[in-house]
Amino acid sequence: MSRPGAIAPLSKGATVILGNEPILLTPGPLTTSPATRQAMLRDWGSWDAAFNQMTQSVCADLAAIANGGAEYVCVPLQGSGTFSVEAALGTLVPRQGLVLVPNNGAYCARIVRILQRLGIDYLELPLEDDEPVSAAAIEDAFNQHARITHVAQVHLETSAGLLNPLDEIAAVCKRHGKSLIVDAMSSFGALPIDLSRGGIDALISASGKCLEGVPGMGFVIVRRGVLEASEGRSPSLALDLHDQYVYMRETTQWRFTPPTHVIAALRAALDQFLAEGGRAARGARYAKNCEALVEGMRALGFEPFLKPEVQAPVIVTFHAPRDPAYDFKTFYAAVRDAGYVLYPGKLTKMETFRVGCIGAIDANEMRNAVAAIGRTLAALGVRVR
Amino acid sequence: MSRPGAIAPLSKGATVILGNEPILLTPGPLTTSPATRQAMLRDWGSWDAAFNQMTQSVCADLAAIANGGAEYVCVPLQGSGTFSVEAALGTLVPRQGLVLVPNNGAYCARIVRILQRLGIDYLELPLEDDEPVSAAAIEDAFNQHARITHVAQVHLETSAGLLNPLDEIAAVCKRHGKSLIVDAMSSFGALPIDLSRGGIDALISASGKCLEGVPGMGFVIVRRGVLEASEGRSPSLALDLHDQYVYMRETTQWRFTPPTHVIAALRAALDQFLAEGGRAARGARYAKNCEALVEGMRALGFEPFLKPEVQAPVIVTFHAPRDPAYDFKTFYAAVRDAGYVLYPGKLTKMETFRVGCIGAIDANEMRNAVAAIGRTLAALGVRVR
Ligand SMILES: Cc1ncc(COP(=O)(O)O)c(C=O)c1O
Ligand SMILES: Cc1ncc(COP(=O)(O)O)c(C=O)c1O
Repeated sequence: MSRPGAIAPLSKGATVILGNEPILLTPGPLTTSPATRQAMLRDWGSWDAAFNQMTQSVCADLAAIANGGAEYVCVPLQGSGTFSVEAALGTLVPRQGLVLVPNNGAYCARIVRILQRLGIDYLELPLEDDEPVSAAAIEDAFNQHARITHVAQVHLETSAGLLNPLDEIAAVCKRHGKSLIVDAMSSFGALPIDLSRGGIDALISASGKCLEGVPGMGFVIVRRGVLEASEGRSPSLALDLHDQYVYMRETTQWRFTPPTHVIAALRAALDQFLAEGGRAARGARYAKNCEALVEGMRALGFEPFLKPEVQAPVIVTFHAPRDPAYDFKTFYAAVRDAGYVLYPGKLTKMETFRVGCIGAIDANEMRNAVAAIGRTLAALGVRVR
Repeated sequence: MSRPGAIAPLSKGATVILGNEPILLTPGPLTTSPATRQAMLRDWGSWDAAFNQMTQSVCADLAAIANGGAEYVCVPLQGSGTFSVEAALGTLVPRQGLVLVPNNGAYCARIVRILQRLGIDYLELPLEDDEPVSAAAIEDAFNQHARITHVAQVHLETSAGLLNPLDEIAAVCKRHGKSLIVDAMSSFGALPIDLSRGGIDALISASGKCLEGVPGMGFVIVRRGVLEASEGRSPSLALDLHDQYVYMRETTQWRFTPPTHVIAALRAALDQFLAEGGRAARGARYAKNCEALVEGMRALGFEPFLKPEVQAPVIVTFHAPRDPAYDFKTFYAAVRDAGYVLYPGKLTKMETFRVGCIGAIDANEMRNAVAAIGRTLAALGVRVR
């Protein structure tokens, strides 16, 4: 896979080094393909049939990726992924519900904050940043708190890159008749999720993650019956998933102005996703990217924060060098000048940084990135160990 | 001004007539310039300084367009314009407030629906679709209902294309010490709005209207003191304007993943806006577009729904032909095939259709559109009068 296409004409307001468009090693926005970006060179009318057919084909493809049959419907929503998370919780959870939130990172904590705002009761299941939740712990909570109605589970905790065991969680929710809402923001499209196995009521993700679209749209793939039972429940108009669903079903249109160019880019990204071989191929490429990254970084002396068995092939957290000469901002800026955008760590307890391995990049690009990191450290005089 | 640039590679999912990209005569999404769309050919990291400088320059320019001095701050928000309207109302209006809503169309009615969801008391001032609110009627309401704390005013009611007298409304709010929140979605950037005259606490618009960006981002230009007094009030996390403001002030970053490409397009669109001569020049071009449209349509026998003195030069509502051979869908499709996308009417009481005169188009394009409409009606055998 090649580096992104031609440099666009730069705007006056931006200060960018011309001819040096960096590769984004970040968990979205990420590096997209030229074809995806070129799909934005056309304007679409939001009332027009061609555009609305495009929306419908996007939604159908998204539901199919998770093997959602006729029982599920995909409802797109304007805004970032968090908007869809809040829309799903605010629309699908009755106010007298009690939501179990296994918490092993910042995106789990964000679910807690959303529930607090919504005035919905929740029960946190506190975990370490490197500790996946176990189905047994969830079952324990069910047994101790019969009032639990829902589980809000982050599939891939992007804070550290940690994978939670979704299949087992879905199985235990199914067995106990609890409604499971999954934030699959950074896993959807790359890691296996099979709605036909049952247990999952709603699955949330967004355009600009493993699908390799541009950011600007989220979506919820939700069991039709659960959604249809949620009329009038959302305390928000803009984030009312039921209203969005009904309006779209009746008119084929979005309720409010859709991000037309973002959707056209997602359509193009999905075409490339399918041409690549779908979810399995996408996941395999990312796994190779991750392997190349971890191997190369280990050779430089870096240790991943997570154990390999819980590391998802999407973003890797590395311990920062202990050398007092190390400073993240300096390191970041120098690696950026070398052509790669890294990501800061998101752990509160120790100093780390993160490197994403998703986007329109391959293992070769990851090796180039590692080489650039190595050269940068040498130039900065920073020793890793 | 030329027609939009080259046709982008079309995705498999879409059914579009190649080589026939229509001009959008719609109130957003609209026809943007090639330079604006080309600004989306680059990926941006959301943590990166260059991107965050771009956001800041966009916000500074937006505030300056409305002559918002140091007292005002522009807070951008992911999503469509409605998300920003709900964010402004949910963040800025205390729960014990009482909001006066002069209602002359669908976007005013939407404000009422939002207030209902938020559980905020409101008082509607019912008006006809073609009847602007008067400052006197607002003053009467203030005198009759001392409990009124806020006025939520749509500046340009896009439903019919009706202009409300913002300056007088702002003056009466100022005199009575009421907080005025203005939905300036389809007027901002084209019609004069001067925050320095006082009276307006918050002004809401979006990327894809008269600024000629692509849709995907709204913004609220708000009096800093009013925003700073609103901490913890929003019942929504995603739509918490105060939280977005504080996070951005402290980090220069967006709270959640920003629609990077939409913002890059808006930066490019603003550069063109400034190069054109700013708000006055933009408004003058639209006025000429509107004049050419109305004149041409009159010559075809069409009557505008609104009187000239309350018609804003943004979108014009025309009475549909009374000929029984007329059917909007057929007419729409045929005009679209001729290269122009019209817009359905939004009035409940009579049959109308709408034609927008905003976007990267000039009066010549409007004359071409009118000619296409004339040819289409002849081909369909529809008589206008
Ligand atoms: C697991 C997870 N949940 C939620 C989000 C929030 O998405 P957004 O930033 O698009 O609002 C992210 C973003 O990376 C994420 O990784
Ligand atoms: C006056 C007015 N308010 C609100 C909106 C809603 O904006 P959006 O469709 O972007 O949510 C519009 C859209 O055209 C509008 O014209």
